[in-house]
This record gives sequence, C-alpha cells and structure tokens, in this order.
Amino acid sequence: MPRSIRPAPGNLLYAQSGGPTAVINATAAAVIQAARRARGKIGKVYAARNGILGALREDLVDTGALSDAEVRAIGHTPGAAFGSCRFKLKGIEDSRAQYERLVAVFRAHDIRWFLYNGGNDSADTSNKISRISAELGFPIHCIGVPKTVDNDLVVTDTCPGFGSVAKFTAVSMREAALDVRSMAESSTKVFVMEVMGRHAGWIAAAAGLAGRKPDEAPHLILFPEIPFDEARFLAAVKATVERVGWCAVAVSEGLKTADGRFLAEAGGKDAFGHVQLGGVGPQIAQLVTARLGYKNHWSVADYLQRSARHVASKTDAEQAAAVGKAAVEYAVAGMNAVMPVIRRRANAPYRWTIEPAALADIANHEKKMPADFIREDGYGITPAARRYLAPLIQGEAFPPWGPDGLPAYATPRFKAVRKRLPGYAIADR
Amino acid sequence: MPRSIRPAPGNLLYAQSGGPTAVINATAAAVIQAARRARGKIGKVYAARNGILGALREDLVDTGALSDAEVRAIGHTPGAAFGSCRFKLKGIEDSRAQYERLVAVFRAHDIRWFLYNGGNDSADTSNKISRISAELGFPIHCIGVPKTVDNDLVVTDTCPGFGSVAKFTAVSMREAALDVRSMAESSTKVFVMEVMGRHAGWIAAAAGLAGRKPDEAPHLILFPEIPFDEARFLAAVKATVERVGWCAVAVSEGLKTADGRFLAEAGGKDAFGHVQLGGVGPQIAQLVTARLGYKNHWSVADYLQRSARHVASKTDAEQAAAVGKAAVEYAVAGMNAVMPVIRRRANAPYRWTIEPAALADIANHEKKMPADFIREDGYGITPAARRYLAPLIQGEAFPPWGPDGLPAYATPRFKAVRKRLPGYAIADR
Repeated sequence: MPRSIRPAPGNLLYAQSGGPTAVINATAAAVIQAARRARGKIGKVYAARNGILGALREDLVDTGALSDAEVRAIGHTPGAAFGSCRFKLKGIEDSRAQYERLVAVFRAHDIRWFLYNGGNDSADTSNKISRISAELGFPIHCIGVPKTVDNDLVVTDTCPGFGSVAKFTAVSMREAALDVRSMAESSTKVFVMEVMGRHAGWIAAAAGLAGRKPDEAPHLILFPEIPFDEARFLAAVKATVERVGWCAVAVSEGLKTADGRFLAEAGGKDAFGHVQLGGVGPQIAQLVTARLGYKNHWSVADYLQRSARHVASKTDAEQAAAVGKAAVEYAVAGMNAVMPVIRRRANAPYRWTIEPAALADIANHEKKMPADFIREDGYGITPAARRYLAPLIQGEAFPPWGPDGLPAYATPRFKAVRKRLPGYAIADR
Repeated sequence: MPRSIRPAPGNLLYAQSGGPTAVINATAAAVIQAARRARGKIGKVYAARNGILGALREDLVDTGALSDAEVRAIGHTPGAAFGSCRFKLKGIEDSRAQYERLVAVFRAHDIRWFLYNGGNDSADTSNKISRISAELGFPIHCIGVPKTVDNDLVVTDTCPGFGSVAKFTAVSMREAALDVRSMAESSTKVFVMEVMGRHAGWIAAAAGLAGRKPDEAPHLILFPEIPFDEARFLAAVKATVERVGWCAVAVSEGLKTADGRFLAEAGGKDAFGHVQLGGVGPQIAQLVTARLGYKNHWSVADYLQRSARHVASKTDAEQAAAVGKAAVEYAVAGMNAVMPVIRRRANAPYRWTIEPAALADIANHEKKMPADFIREDGYGITPAARRYLAPLIQGEAFPPWGPDGLPAYATPRFKAVRKRLPGYAIADR
C-alpha cells in the first residue's frame, strides 16, 4: 500500500487515456485547481497532448497559462480536453526504449508526479512507470486517476464517467419509450436501443432504471453476460407486445451468440458490399420484424451517450472532480502507485468517500457485473442492481448554456512547452 | 379565410396525429388550459385516444378529470400523451362511411370544435371534416394545430417540434465532435451522425449550428436535396482529415443516389439474411473505412432525437404552447378551417407572433428547404440558413427532475368517456 516518502519538489504531469467520458474534464479541472492550491509544493502543472503519446513525444502544454475561468470551463466540457489515445505500454522487456524515453522527458522537464487519467490499461501503465522510473534512477510518483464509461475497474465503487452514460441511457430509454407507446397502435411496435458495453452489461443494466413498475420500458434487456437465444427472445417480444401493446428493448453492443461470437460481427454485407461491422441494434430490430412482422425502430447512440455532458449526472461529475482533487493530494502527500477510489458508505441517501488503493490491486483486473444483478429470466435487472445503480445517476450538473442555445463548451488554445529533447518516433503503433 | 360565424356552445375535441415531438404535449396542455379559462364558452374538453382513430371508435377521454398539476405535467412530457396515429382519411367519395361515423360521434357527444394537432395530413383531414360535417348537417369548427419535427408545413415560420429536434441535433453533434477530436490522433477519425428528414434537409441543416468557425464540426453535411456523389464525398472526407485531423459528418436519412433512390434502401443483407432497411449512417461510415481506411464511428439517434424533451428548445416549447392557446381562442372566436401559424417578425432578437391561416392554403403543400440555405459545395449551411435556424434552438426548457435522477414525466390515467354509439370497425387500415 501507499508509500509515504516525501517527494522532491518539481513539476506535475497530467494525461488522459482511452475513450473520453462526459466528465473526464471535471477531473482534469480538479487536478489543475488542486495543484494551484498546492503552489509551493508543486511547481508547474503540465498536460500531455493525446495521453502517453504526448509524453513520449515531449508534446506537453503548460496549464499555468490557463485562466481560472478557462480551467472551470474545461471542467464542464466533454471530450478529453488535452487529447487522449489508445496506446498501451508493454512490459519493460519489450519496450525498454519507450520507458527510457519517458524517463528522459520527465527528467528534462523535472516532472516528479505523473497523474494518468484512464481505465485498466492506464492503471497498468502508471504502475509500470512508477516501478521502472525508479529502476532507471529518476523515480516518478505515479497516481492513476479512474475514468471509464465501462465501469469495469475493480476496488472502486464506480468509475467516473459511468454515472453520466448511465443517466443518458436511462433518460433516453424513458423518453423514446414514451414516443413508441403513443404510436404503437398504428405504427412502430418494437423499439431497440443499442448501448455501449463490449464486455459487461453495466450500461445495458442502467437502461433498466428507466422503468420502475412491471411492464414499464425497457421490457427486455439483452446483456452480454447472457448468450442470445433467438427463439426465446422472439417469444418474449411477442408476449410483451400482446400484453403491453408494444415492446422496448435495450441491447448491449457486446451481445454474444451461444458459441461466444459477438452478434455484431456475425456477418452481413451493406449496400456497398462491405462486411457489416457493429450494429447489433439494427440486427435485433430487423430480426423482430422479419420473424414477427412488427414494425421496428432502432437507435445506436454511440458517442452521443458518452459525450452527453448536457445531461451529466451530478453525482458522477462530483466524483470525477473528487478523484482529481484527491490524486493531487496523494501526490503532495508522497504517495506512489495508488489510485483514488470511491468507497460506498450508504445507498440511500448515497454517501461515498475517496480513499487510496494500490494500482497493483487494480491494474489488469476487470470488474464483472455481479450475477445477482440480472433478473432470473435474463431480461431485466434485480432490486440489488437498482440499489447499486440508482444513486449514480442522481442529480443534474447542467453546463452553462450560451445565448446560441448550445452548451458553452470550451476548447482553449494551449501553451506548448518548449521541447528540450530531440524528436522521437513511436514504434509499436 | 376565417369565417366568423358564432358557434353554438358545446364540447371540444382535441387529438394528436403523426410522429410525436418533444413538445407536442406542451400544445396539448395549452389547449386544455385555455379551454378551462374559456369555461362558459366551451363545455367539456375531450381528447381522442390515438388521434382520429379514437374519434372514429368513440374512444374519448375527459380531460376535465385531470388536475391542473396533471395538465402541467403532461405539458413537459414527451411522446403524444393521448396517443397518436398514422391514418389519413381519404376524400368523401372513398370514405363517406368514415365521415358519417365521425359526425355521428361528434353529434353523440355534442362536439362542436375539433382541434387536430399534426402536420400536413392532419391539416388536410381537419379541412375535410370542416367541409363535410357542414354538408352532413352538423357543422364542426375545425382548427389545425401545427406539429412536426420535419418542419415542412408551409405558411408558418416553423413547426412546433422542429426547434427541439434541431437543438438535440446541434448539441449532440457538438458533444460527439469533442469526443472524436480528442481521440482522432490514435483512434476514430471519421464520425457519421444520421439524422431524421426523409424528404427535406431541415434537421441535417440544424446539425450545422454546432459549428461556427471554418473547420468546426460538422465538416460535411449530406442533404437529401443533393444527390450523393461517392467520389466527391470521399475526396472531401480525405481533405478534411488531412487538414483538420478528423472529420464529422451529418447525414440525412433521406440521402438519395443520383437516380433518385434512397441510399438506405439501396440494399445489403444483415446477419440474418434480411434486406437491410435504413441505416444510411452506418453505410456512409463503412464506405469511408473501406475506401479511405479511416476508423469510423456512427450514430443513429432515431426516436431519441424527437423525444429528447430533456434538452428541448425554450423557443420551441413556447411556440408549441402558443399555438395550442391560439387554437382555442380561434375556436371560441368562431373561426373555422384555420391553423394558428407562427409569423417571424425579427431575426435577432427573434420575435414572432401567432396568426390564423386557412387550412386550404396549408394542406397538401410541402415546405422545401430554400436552395440558398445549402452552401455552394453542397456540404454545409449558408449564413441565410443560420439566420433562420439559430433562433429556433434558443433557450432551455428543462423538465422538472425527480429525486431518481430522471425527468419527472407524467402518464396519468385518463377517464374514459362513456360510449353512446355501437362499436365501429375501421376499414382501410
């Protein structure tokens, strides 16, 4: 667990990794704000452009050039303000040159703290950098900062970013269902909403929050945890339409066949003759129409769901800011190879605290949805799931809106940090 | 133009038609509220279940049983509160029995005013009922009340419902673009957002409001008005990615090939071997990847866009309420075969008034997007389009939010009106 060696004064580097969330920049803003409050203990606060790629390329920006108002505006803007990346550092054996380069960049800019804001892979990367930088004689204090819409980090109660995509999903299901309900008599009878979640049904489960009473939408949820049984599903749709008059389905993009293949990759060609990638939502919808004759509509919100800052969860936004603030506090306190995680203290009202956990306990693990979160018939969520999920979408954190009727999102120009090293070409891409 | 024969006292029937909008119930609530204020002049306020189908079936509800709070709550709920339908009455020659049945229902319930809330077809239906009911000896005063996300009604400046779908579209494009922008360096380079609009590019044009400066998203808009030129489009995507680093595309579901076919119907089979219906968004995205090699993501919001009451335009919600209120005032004033339309008085700040227009001038016409709204290269909107569109998304009209983190939408139980006639089977369905 956390070491408490007092770090030498120096600069802090923050970077963002993996798919953005609606609130990842709430974390970024909180990091910058907390570090500003720690002036004297922390020197400059740099951010890497496009995550670890920017660190490798020495492509850094100086957040000190941002006004407090600009930092606040970044905090309510979706996307990853400093750019993100999909790039995983391998082990020291395979990628010694990359670790040496990173340490050279850190040394050149007197970077003593590295805060990496991401999911599983980033926790792993942070953990490795912490260890290897010490081996290379320039020890960096690494703090992983949690972020992922997938909600698949272990130890922490939830991952900042998940609560907002969950809220978008539940709100959208409730709204679209009201639309379908009012047209079902003479038009669309089955609506299928595809949601993200390649490996676990967390977001699909969140759709379940849209309904509380029996026969409220969504009537059926297709989880990646439950192999798709076409005949059983069609029977359930038919029974729902005959009982309720219509049927709303939430389907996870990660829905699999009984033999373990993603339905979305099971095939088909589009109008141009290309293999159809993705789109399990339309597949399910068309299946229903072909076999049961019901008119269908389907939606795939895709990036809309994870960037919908306009309907962010207040709880989620607060947690995103809290982990950013804590990460800086841990850095100042000399902790290393830790991640601020959320611990649930109570369900109703939801109370939570932030505490440090060792990156080693988090990296390379994946939190699955508990089996008792899925209803016995496989098509809905249980009260246990509801108790867990409900608090995460509570409260609204509206961004300020501009006179143009759009959220006042900010993409300030950043001040580049002057490079001190020769250029570097990244291998293994 | 409006006749001013004083109608006999009696009851009012309101019905909803066609695809719901985020604000159609703001109109419904305003109708009920205005009619309550006109007590003494208007008797009971009935609503037909599922539009004209409910009128034919004598399936009516008495809105008098709703509390004022319930009416207000309906007003901020998406979907069509009383149910809607896709059903067009034919001419008197083909459907004499249906008109006779309608008049019998109106007579049985002393309905003297019929307010039909819909688009083109509903304006036509209202106009016919007005004429034919007089011929059948029980003259009904008919008021068409505008509603359609398609924005294709003539005479009126805009159609209630369009401003909110336009706002959802512009907000979503801005948010998703921030996501793509931050990942483009190592992941998705092209994002394609499909929007509604089978025959006209109004909603696609609204996506253009997301960007103001050159090279702000959306970089390319594919309008149904401009035949799809694959080679030219791919060249434009490539140039955008090379210049900006990524490319966001808005595509109308109504995009057509040069020979006039919908791209979405151009073919392809899904994983189950069924013909692929719809989904021009994924088609375009996959085309880009197949020909240019860029990683893509795509979204099809479908019903999410027209039911997104949580991000409704305040301007739109106000106009929806204003046409409902005016419709009742016109009814009380003895007008017939008219529709309250929106007249634009000024662009900035947007000022508008409501005035009556003859249904005969509106029914069976379709408002096309002016040619000078589309940029010369065919891939964007002009300043003229922006001047027209910008006011329509201004202001936010948030619904109240519940403690569960979801909008507090209302679906009260309605009090059925006792039937006085024998049952009726609807032909021509």
